[in-house]
Amino acid sequence: MSHVLRVAVAGCGTVGGALLDLLARHGPEIARRSGTSIEVTRVLVRDAHRPRSVSVDRALVTDDVHEFISTPADAVVEAIGGVTDAAHIARAALGRGRRLVTANKALLREAGPALASLASAQRHTGATLDFEAAVGGGVPIVRLLRESLAGHGLQSVRGVLNGTTNYIITRIEQGATYDQALTSARSAGFAEADPSRDLRGHDAADKIALLAWLAFGTDPASLSVRVRGLPVYIEHDVRDAMRQCKVIRLVAMATRVADGVYASVAPKLLAPDDPLAQVRDEENIIQLESESSGVVTVSGRGAGGPATASALLADLLRAASPVPLFR
Amino acid sequence: MSHVLRVAVAGCGTVGGALLDLLARHGPEIARRSGTSIEVTRVLVRDAHRPRSVSVDRALVTDDVHEFISTPADAVVEAIGGVTDAAHIARAALGRGRRLVTANKALLREAGPALASLASAQRHTGATLDFEAAVGGGVPIVRLLRESLAGHGLQSVRGVLNGTTNYIITRIEQGATYDQALTSARSAGFAEADPSRDLRGHDAADKIALLAWLAFGTDPASLSVRVRGLPVYIEHDVRDAMRQCKVIRLVAMATRVADGVYASVAPKLLAPDDPLAQVRDEENIIQLESESSGVVTVSGRGAGGPATASALLADLLRAASPVPLFR
Repeated sequence: MSHVLRVAVAGCGTVGGALLDLLARHGPEIARRSGTSIEVTRVLVRDAHRPRSVSVDRALVTDDVHEFISTPADAVVEAIGGVTDAAHIARAALGRGRRLVTANKALLREAGPALASLASAQRHTGATLDFEAAVGGGVPIVRLLRESLAGHGLQSVRGVLNGTTNYIITRIEQGATYDQALTSARSAGFAEADPSRDLRGHDAADKIALLAWLAFGTDPASLSVRVRGLPVYIEHDVRDAMRQCKVIRLVAMATRVADGVYASVAPKLLAPDDPLAQVRDEENIIQLESESSGVVTVSGRGAGGPATASALLADLLRAASPVPLFR
Repeated sequence: MSHVLRVAVAGCGTVGGALLDLLARHGPEIARRSGTSIEVTRVLVRDAHRPRSVSVDRALVTDDVHEFISTPADAVVEAIGGVTDAAHIARAALGRGRRLVTANKALLREAGPALASLASAQRHTGATLDFEAAVGGGVPIVRLLRESLAGHGLQSVRGVLNGTTNYIITRIEQGATYDQALTSARSAGFAEADPSRDLRGHDAADKIALLAWLAFGTDPASLSVRVRGLPVYIEHDVRDAMRQCKVIRLVAMATRVADGVYASVAPKLLAPDDPLAQVRDEENIIQLESESSGVVTVSGRGAGGPATASALLADLLRAASPVPLFR
């Protein structure tokens, strides 16, 4: 007695592909446990003729955005990346009263509040916006912040948000060279073909901007984040920190200050008993500090297709988000 | 332009009193941030003539359960403790289409699924059941489990769930005697006047039974939890562990096994880099393990009136829970 959720998936790369694999492998179990049977109605790719390892019915694959948009669906998963096409798909989905689920940090940083407004204006048609997969991989931080949004004042958000750089740093701690660590991150599927957004801190900056939006209502597009990525001499820095019994982590933070919100991403020297010092490999960690609840710490698997696919699935399965976003 | 939520509060002890104080001190800020203005319409106490330090209008105080139940309210906060009266109030609230918010572990362990059924049957009238404050204090574990319920299979739940015993253990680690540590827990407001349910592990057993319900659908009343509390020689055990460079924690766990769910509460010897070994004082920590997301760890302030009051407030402010409970 499960109800059917028709889902159109834009993008069949690391994230979209992992979601399709998850649905192909665990669809019946998901339906049994959740009461929702997910039917993929369309898959948008950049090149419909490229062979794929993902288990997807070829008849569903299209590289025509208009065809994708006009395919009937209850929900659209946007995992195509980039901003222009993704924004077009996102607006079209919400405009048609569909639930939009996205993992696209760059899109949300640029257009998150506008998309939230559109979802809100279209709420009577069933449109909703969810993006658990955009920050923290398997760590349910977006949900936590959206749920606590209405509550009592958060003071600061701080964390390790980029799995690739953390994987590299902890591999160096274990004796690898920088080059070995980067190669290893790539072969483990964490680093992108072009990992420069990760290494230079821009991925973490997009994520902390989104968390600042959820925590403080700051427009992520206009929030200026001071960013320093991993320096070329990170291997030296990590070993130097170890000699002092300290730990280096790429720390992203956003905090309320008198005239707004201060946000930064930078490698920081941490005491070994700092919770941020204890995340290894691709793990992510986030600490939320509020007057009423003190510090709440959440950690778990950050980067990688399966963790992100699992977050997309959670968004698809849950009832429409109950709490409005800052707009 | 805030809407008014009329709330009747049953109980004016540590938890109910802390909620009333929070509302008295931060009501205007809560209304401004959340759009919800909370109006307390009634406060049920055991003895209406006893003087109280809590900031509450005496005209609202009653010790008559029938009068309390018949007072108009949109939501009822049940913080009176015990099972019989609490169950009566809970059923009456849900039967009248009110949102029930409770911190009462014992009530939920005995009657959680029945109350969830009643809330579900009365959903069309606006009745809902929320109980973030029952487990983990300021750690939003109930919400996380209810949200992820429909998802992908959780394998195990493990954590430090009792703030009083953890406070005692970590004070002993810092050099206190058992008696000093217990006195200190009391004066810090964590230990109850009769702390035997904490010390014997029964508080943690109720909590792990509730988490097993949320994670696996197990009826918490029929789940048998193997319980060992702090032994009389805990001071010796803690110091002995320290000599081995290990740590003692009162660990609660529930895990899927072939024929159901195995659950236990017991002092465990942990390696110092175990996340459970790192929670200090009244902190709580919970680890959720699933195939798809790996281990997610959540920690924060556990015991104490303010943390619990903050969890009650979060339940009051959020939209009605979107995800049905196991029934």
